[in-house]
Amino acid sequence: MTRDVAPPSAAIRAEAVERLAGLATPTGALGRLGDLAVWVAATQGRVPPLPVDRVRAVIFAGDHGVSDHGVSAYPKAITTAMVHTFLLGRAGVSVLAAQHGVTVRVLDIGVDDDLDDVAPEATAYKVCRGSGAIHLEDAPTSEQTRQAIAVGEAVAAEEIAAGAQLLISGDMGIGNTTPASALIAASLGLPASEVTGRGTGIDEDGLARKTLVVQRALDRAGPRTTDPVDTLTALGSADLAASAGFMAAAARAGVPILLDGVISVAAAMMAARLAPGTSAWCAAGHRSTEPAQSLALDKLGLEPILDLGMRLGEGSGAVAAVPLVRSAALLLSDIALLTDLMP
Amino acid sequence: MTRDVAPPSAAIRAEAVERLAGLATPTGALGRLGDLAVWVAATQGRVPPLPVDRVRAVIFAGDHGVSDHGVSAYPKAITTAMVHTFLLGRAGVSVLAAQHGVTVRVLDIGVDDDLDDVAPEATAYKVCRGSGAIHLEDAPTSEQTRQAIAVGEAVAAEEIAAGAQLLISGDMGIGNTTPASALIAASLGLPASEVTGRGTGIDEDGLARKTLVVQRALDRAGPRTTDPVDTLTALGSADLAASAGFMAAAARAGVPILLDGVISVAAAMMAARLAPGTSAWCAAGHRSTEPAQSLALDKLGLEPILDLGMRLGEGSGAVAAVPLVRSAALLLSDIALLTDLMP
Repeated sequence: MTRDVAPPSAAIRAEAVERLAGLATPTGALGRLGDLAVWVAATQGRVPPLPVDRVRAVIFAGDHGVSDHGVSAYPKAITTAMVHTFLLGRAGVSVLAAQHGVTVRVLDIGVDDDLDDVAPEATAYKVCRGSGAIHLEDAPTSEQTRQAIAVGEAVAAEEIAAGAQLLISGDMGIGNTTPASALIAASLGLPASEVTGRGTGIDEDGLARKTLVVQRALDRAGPRTTDPVDTLTALGSADLAASAGFMAAAARAGVPILLDGVISVAAAMMAARLAPGTSAWCAAGHRSTEPAQSLALDKLGLEPILDLGMRLGEGSGAVAAVPLVRSAALLLSDIALLTDLMP
Repeated sequence: MTRDVAPPSAAIRAEAVERLAGLATPTGALGRLGDLAVWVAATQGRVPPLPVDRVRAVIFAGDHGVSDHGVSAYPKAITTAMVHTFLLGRAGVSVLAAQHGVTVRVLDIGVDDDLDDVAPEATAYKVCRGSGAIHLEDAPTSEQTRQAIAVGEAVAAEEIAAGAQLLISGDMGIGNTTPASALIAASLGLPASEVTGRGTGIDEDGLARKTLVVQRALDRAGPRTTDPVDTLTALGSADLAASAGFMAAAARAGVPILLDGVISVAAAMMAARLAPGTSAWCAAGHRSTEPAQSLALDKLGLEPILDLGMRLGEGSGAVAAVPLVRSAALLLSDIALLTDLMP
């Protein structure tokens, strides 16, 4: 299932670096917006880059068996409630997306509830009713993991067909930082104590329980973590597998991805194992408060655009960073060239 | 000339904090966007806050005698060239402002050139042709400093009359980080070596020269730095004085200000001395690469929204942060309340 991804064009990147140096600004004055502009140009294969108008976000929703084991500040029922809130356009990511003209699609991949009657548009790709508690059992079956990856790939293809110039993968599901942290720990070879964070805001006891769950899951998975599909089956969930497939397909199609928090970055690490080279198509929207997210971003070689202490999930940190990606492209395109001013 | 500024409403702030806690998000999940939303609401005196649609930026342009003394990577003539670039809408800040629907007005306060023929709309408030080299002589005269402060106040009144909900003060002028650093050093009681940075990108020798110029200016000013007008006269410039007056007038009128880099923050420190209480009406748009800016922001108790290594000036770091101020207000206004979801 792994297939390498061609990197963004080195020739276009070089051309973008040259244009950046020729802008009527002091050298380096745009800071990281300059680097981001070069990345956007390279992913588009165009200098100057086109405006990044069409940004599309997909929220993969699913439940996690670990949420019955004291790892989260909220009960599982909130997952369904939040799917409804997305559909009403009243969640945090909905507000940001409306501000920035980003489309948001919410998909029930593995919610432990029956949403067919209330949200038929969201359930067409459902893989399972809830994923298992990773410290006790495989999360989805191996077959369901492959199905979820294929779902993510199909959804990416749909979003690209709809014109996406930049894709965002968000996640909704109480308990989701636990499998995400386990996937990152397994990928980096780190113990649970180094990756586990407070998620939506658990106390000391909760953090201790959550760390134990992550470590037991890692111990249970053992050597199966050498294979990405096995890793997602043992430590992940249907929604995380779908998100990984979504990103791998985007990178294969040459469409850039803006990462969100720990769930999104965990999926990106798995996408980079399913499709080596994927991370060159990724930029990091924000730094979340989860330690696993920063560790994984370091490994991927990505520096976040925003660092605002956000931990809302839903893709919200990525959507909040969209105007800065757009700024980067516009600055490289529209600032006067020195040769224009002093011909 | 000093007059205290009333703070944003504590009652409204408390009401905003309460609304934030009642949003359908985990407590604290919006991170610093939540704090920013509370500040916006308090400055508006409204919960939920109104959308921050009307943002207006003014760029105060001026030359600095120190630019003839090897403190900058660029010659003085660039100041005039950049005023033309602003008027053409092709500078960095112009591009960002067009993206975000922010109005930009450029005013020649102290450019060492005659712009009357080419840019009459920009010269109506001109105070002087260039400000002096601060290590050798007072920058403007005391009378010109007062005039420049009054100009800034008048311009703020015009922008507020035009409907500004948020004001930005930018600056253009080769050499401008030298007086800005001196003003911050004087205000914080620090030596030149701790505040002086590389500006647009000077080398080691340039940095040594610049540090010496700042220290000689501080030594020359001596005890006059106890008075804000005397400080601006000895260490500042006409454009910096105008920017300080602009911010003080905005705060007195209860209109919030989004700060840019070291020039803007130096002006804010002086505004806070002209009109104590001004800093409560300020938010910091970005962290620049200048050490003096971070030192001054710490003193003002402000944490920047963006930290992207930008050092373009022109108000660009503040304008780049505008969508995040808008996001903060929209999130507090538009996210569902828990009481809506579970009545």
